[in-house]
Amino acid sequence: MPKINSVQTHLLRVLSLIYRHERISRTKLAANTGYSSFLISKLTERLLKDDFIHEMGAGESSGGRPPTLLSINPGIGHLVGVHMGTINLRLAVTDMCGRVLAYKIEKSLVDKGPDDALNHLLEAIFDLLKEAKISRHKLSGVGMGISGLLDRARGITLSWPKVSSWANVPVRSFLEDNLGTFVEVDDTPRTMALAEKRYGTARNSEEFVYLTFGAGIGAALFLHGKLYAGQGGFAGEFGHTTIDEHGPLCSCGNRGCVEALVSASIIIRQAEEGLAMDLSPQLRLITQQNGGRVTLEGIARAAEANDRFCLGLLLETGVRVGIGIVSLVNLLNPELIVLGGGLPKAAGKWLLPSINRVVQERAMQGPASQVSIVLSDLTEVDWARGAALLASESALRRALVKAYGS
Amino acid sequence: MPKINSVQTHLLRVLSLIYRHERISRTKLAANTGYSSFLISKLTERLLKDDFIHEMGAGESSGGRPPTLLSINPGIGHLVGVHMGTINLRLAVTDMCGRVLAYKIEKSLVDKGPDDALNHLLEAIFDLLKEAKISRHKLSGVGMGISGLLDRARGITLSWPKVSSWANVPVRSFLEDNLGTFVEVDDTPRTMALAEKRYGTARNSEEFVYLTFGAGIGAALFLHGKLYAGQGGFAGEFGHTTIDEHGPLCSCGNRGCVEALVSASIIIRQAEEGLAMDLSPQLRLITQQNGGRVTLEGIARAAEANDRFCLGLLLETGVRVGIGIVSLVNLLNPELIVLGGGLPKAAGKWLLPSINRVVQERAMQGPASQVSIVLSDLTEVDWARGAALLASESALRRALVKAYGS
Repeated sequence: MPKINSVQTHLLRVLSLIYRHERISRTKLAANTGYSSFLISKLTERLLKDDFIHEMGAGESSGGRPPTLLSINPGIGHLVGVHMGTINLRLAVTDMCGRVLAYKIEKSLVDKGPDDALNHLLEAIFDLLKEAKISRHKLSGVGMGISGLLDRARGITLSWPKVSSWANVPVRSFLEDNLGTFVEVDDTPRTMALAEKRYGTARNSEEFVYLTFGAGIGAALFLHGKLYAGQGGFAGEFGHTTIDEHGPLCSCGNRGCVEALVSASIIIRQAEEGLAMDLSPQLRLITQQNGGRVTLEGIARAAEANDRFCLGLLLETGVRVGIGIVSLVNLLNPELIVLGGGLPKAAGKWLLPSINRVVQERAMQGPASQVSIVLSDLTEVDWARGAALLASESALRRALVKAYGS
Repeated sequence: MPKINSVQTHLLRVLSLIYRHERISRTKLAANTGYSSFLISKLTERLLKDDFIHEMGAGESSGGRPPTLLSINPGIGHLVGVHMGTINLRLAVTDMCGRVLAYKIEKSLVDKGPDDALNHLLEAIFDLLKEAKISRHKLSGVGMGISGLLDRARGITLSWPKVSSWANVPVRSFLEDNLGTFVEVDDTPRTMALAEKRYGTARNSEEFVYLTFGAGIGAALFLHGKLYAGQGGFAGEFGHTTIDEHGPLCSCGNRGCVEALVSASIIIRQAEEGLAMDLSPQLRLITQQNGGRVTLEGIARAAEANDRFCLGLLLETGVRVGIGIVSLVNLLNPELIVLGGGLPKAAGKWLLPSINRVVQERAMQGPASQVSIVLSDLTEVDWARGAALLASESALRRALVKAYGS
């Protein structure tokens, strides 16, 4: 990371604040930095002159003339965001304000092993940059969320749940070497939480928990106004919260984990058992139309058609998720819990009432009364935009150093 | 809070850093603040002249001449720390460096209701100040840990577990009005964690969890280098982590909470059942010597004498605590968990091996390999010293304003 001098430090601080707030007045910049109005005026004048920032219209007045708001020039840099799940890959090219210039969603090829998956990813990035008409030499950075287990500091995968051959794969250096730009990686629940914080329902929250229910169950903790990763980056294994010490064995070796009771594959297996026992006429019909494959979407459609077995299955799933969330609410007293990923997307409507009921019944009164539990309204493309945010602050820094020398 | 001007802001920043580090060199102060060596030299010169800080001997050299270390003048203020548990009250008068000038441990009278308990507390503080020869007009502040449920922002109790009549008691304003000084309150697990961070085994940890096992089970989360209290100050209800969704009803209304399975009263009841079934000859002997009362200490002494029933009871307790800790380790990936309070003090030796075994067997490999679980080595007087720390930073600020005007 290049060193920057004292004036650049002030410029960067102001630029970062404008970036984080999206729109902010000079008065608020002064209040946030502790800098004098005079210094703020000088610094923003310079950033305006050099086209790092723009003046937007007027903000809300607190009495006198409404203040002019400043925002980042979206064109000062371009980022690539990657969300690499076990099954699907989501990519986006964005400007510095997160506007999507191009995106694609395709298979991740994670199950084919790291060589195939990473070469495929690289090709996809090249294609997307071409589509967005951004030269790769103009790329400011890449942020990547990975569903595998990571050593974040070194940018390598340690393993990948249910997929072999992903031990010690240097994902970050592979991309940095081939793209010639700065790359940052983190786990997918955390990059999804970044998306929620900037583009989603957590926009105004300083303390929230993002839970994602996909092939596995993950969590990102946003505490004290920033992501909390724990001692070694492993924080957030909410899926391995015990809810029944004598419960079924989980893939992690523990018993009665939330993930062992309510993962997508468990729900689908329970639905298949229901079909075998002829308990679910609607699901039978839907499954036949779907070539015999039971899916979460099919279960949700059957519930929509008032299929009692599927309604019961989703209600029971909500209760189990709720019991796990009770421990979380009691421990962390969050103001907001956002539920994202495939299961809430397909069936959130049926899960949320029973989750809320269990939390209100079982959690301590204080934290239960303060928590809102909501479904994410972001799309898979937003997950890629969220990952791009990993690289945004360092991209600003490098843009500044490039403009003013180091 | 009085406003301070710009020079005072710099002086306070440096003074706070010296306080937090206990001993620190001018070079490190410069690195920590981003101030120039020249500014640091001017600021520390002024603080030395006005006797806010002292020069200690030399620190460790990183090559050249060993740097002179600076530390707070312990006499610039005096604090009272109070730890008010359901049964016992611990009080200490300390100087600004946490040296104890006087202390006492007595009954808290919490069960007699707020009038008796608070008047008793006030008398105890007056007595202790007299013993320490500190005029109450010279008191810089009071920090108080309370085992009741708190509205921290307003300094009032909302309720007290298992004791009635503590709804909406304005503890902070009662003490402020009667002592004429600044008072800060928080819950006891958090003030105990402050003691662990400054005086105990968590001294070098930036991410740790403090668990306390007394009448109830509480937790304090120290994350991102500071206490995490959650949205409304309720964070830390580790005792109400579910470990068995079908388990026994807990006082909180949930089922199968850690606290419903391993609180002191549950363990004592199980021991009494063992006695009734004549399963524990050693405990019978010890209990007879103790006037028929079964205590945690008695159970621990019986285990020490190789009583199989008591050994089994403590092992089983450790397993249950361990299962709760597994969820905590998976969620937060802490580097350290400190076990404090009555149960670990009496029986930690027998609990710790089974807790560690369960965590290593059941928690995810990454976070399990990174966590140390240790017994607190602090005393009850340290709990009062920890509570005093709540008031220390604001005491520094007021001392500074008093010296240099506002």
